[in-house]
Amino acid sequence: MKSGNLFGGIPEPIAAEIFEELLRSGNLKLERIVSAGQATPPGVWLDQESHEWVALLAGSAGLRFEDESEVCALKPGDYLHIPAHRRHRVEWTDPREKTVWLALHYR
Amino acid sequence: MKSGNLFGGIPEPIAAEIFEELLRSGNLKLERIVSAGQATPPGVWLDQESHEWVALLAGSAGLRFEDESEVCALKPGDYLHIPAHRRHRVEWTDPREKTVWLALHYR
Repeated sequence: MKSGNLFGGIPEPIAAEIFEELLRSGNLKLERIVSAGQATPPGVWLDQESHEWVALLAGSAGLRFEDESEVCALKPGDYLHIPAHRRHRVEWTDPREKTVWLALHYR
Repeated sequence: MKSGNLFGGIPEPIAAEIFEELLRSGNLKLERIVSAGQATPPGVWLDQESHEWVALLAGSAGLRFEDESEVCALKPGDYLHIPAHRRHRVEWTDPREKTVWLALHYR
């Protein structure tokens, strides 16, 4: 089983978001995501089969839910729960520094 | 479902380690632990029924496994996996600043 550092092993520059599986067991998957300014494409909503608990550990990001009008700005340490099929999108991630997410997907 | 900040809501001073459940579903439990210099009592080993994925997010700590001679020193971002029944103990946590852990227990 992998050990490491959540802020380590990030190539520079990164062309696309990096998804790295840290743990998978039964119906749970834990992954690290590294973003560098990427966002969900315009007009696209994420609609997931699994529930997701997600924390932003470095950088910053704006998360929008289809059922809310305000964009939720996330700073390091912020976490939230996204139930399956609650449609959401990443409006923006920090353009200057890497944004590191820890996402736990489960059913 | 709770949202918040992993580094927020920490009382000062703290008399004992703080265990806060962030998520529980089926056989998984996600918790934040805040330590302020505490350690596992001398001679005691932790022997858990569940597997644990754990990350240290702030502070520092020394983790010892019964089957290893060296203490594993953890810094922010370090994560590791502790299989069920792998006996271990926390030798020390940072005496000067709070140590924040994120622990995912699952079966």
